Amino acid sequence: MQPIALIKNSIKSIEDYPIPGIIFRDVTSLIENGEAFAATIELFKARYEGQKIDKIVGTEARGFIFGAPLAAVLGAGFVPVRKPNKLPRETIQESYELEYGDDTLQLHKDAIKPGEKVLLMDDLLATGGTAEASVKLIKRLGGEVVEAAFVIELPDLKGSDKLTALSVPVFSLIEYAGE
Amino acid sequence: MQPIALIKNSIKSIEDYPIPGIIFRDVTSLIENGEAFAATIELFKARYEGQKIDKIVGTEARGFIFGAPLAAVLGAGFVPVRKPNKLPRETIQESYELEYGDDTLQLHKDAIKPGEKVLLMDDLLATGGTAEASVKLIKRLGGEVVEAAFVIELPDLKGSDKLTALSVPVFSLIEYAGE
Repeated sequence: MQPIALIKNSIKSIEDYPIPGIIFRDVTSLIENGEAFAATIELFKARYEGQKIDKIVGTEARGFIFGAPLAAVLGAGFVPVRKPNKLPRETIQESYELEYGDDTLQLHKDAIKPGEKVLLMDDLLATGGTAEASVKLIKRLGGEVVEAAFVIELPDLKGSDKLTALSVPVFSLIEYAGE
Repeated sequence: MQPIALIKNSIKSIEDYPIPGIIFRDVTSLIENGEAFAATIELFKARYEGQKIDKIVGTEARGFIFGAPLAAVLGAGFVPVRKPNKLPRETIQESYELEYGDDTLQLHKDAIKPGEKVLLMDDLLATGGTAEASVKLIKRLGGEVVEAAFVIELPDLKGSDKLTALSVPVFSLIEYAGE
């Protein structure tokens, strides 16, 4: 089986989760499959090796599951973006809007140096709120965001518009459109 | 520099965090260092390759940062143990005591099959409460826990006693004792 087919077949779709009318794309069923998980990291490695990425930023918590393995195989540093009060050193923060209310993400102030080449990674691009906040945090520290990479993109929700507006290219392995 | 010295030197110690009297060992300063992070995963890979590990279980959230990269390089599945209401499919759960109150961890019921060889990974072994709860979850699904692996162990807190009582060997790269 081709890697992309193996990966897509391993993602379970859960109807009406977390609320009625939503189809949840479950990456835990992908990562539990050793062959599919290794193939996923291999595809990202093939895209980014040779690009001299200094840091990979992953967003809490599923972004850690894809960003950390890619960092380890590329020899890049891994930098977590976390919810408030989880990081032990001095942080900067950005808030972003949710459907109801808002949420805040934090980044260590010394985790990225000016001019470093940074790749943002998360499991899923939906409305793009967390990715947009993460890009803003990286740019405030002077990092150059070379791309934002996702396993899954839901293009109907137009999250990539928020990132291209910040001059950040978007790459995703799998899209679910019109569903 | 030897890998262990490189890794140990990259871990910042933060005094009086999160409360006075505690020295916090900060693995984010390790993972942000690409060379030290790759060396960490390489040491675990050297220990476990050839052991036919089926699944690596990592505990939310820092366990994801070490468990997922090792799973990807070994070709094993990665299985997250998470706080309540984070996993989309049917789960089993275990509660464990904290200094004040208690907490609960969940595991997907279909994530581990009877007889599978499982490695538990987390960043730090302190009192061992979360590791003990994670081992109980894996065993309830019939998994064989071949070892519990940590980057850092604080042996004064005797967390390894809880795991050896469950017949689970403990391995850690770095110990901080008597401090």
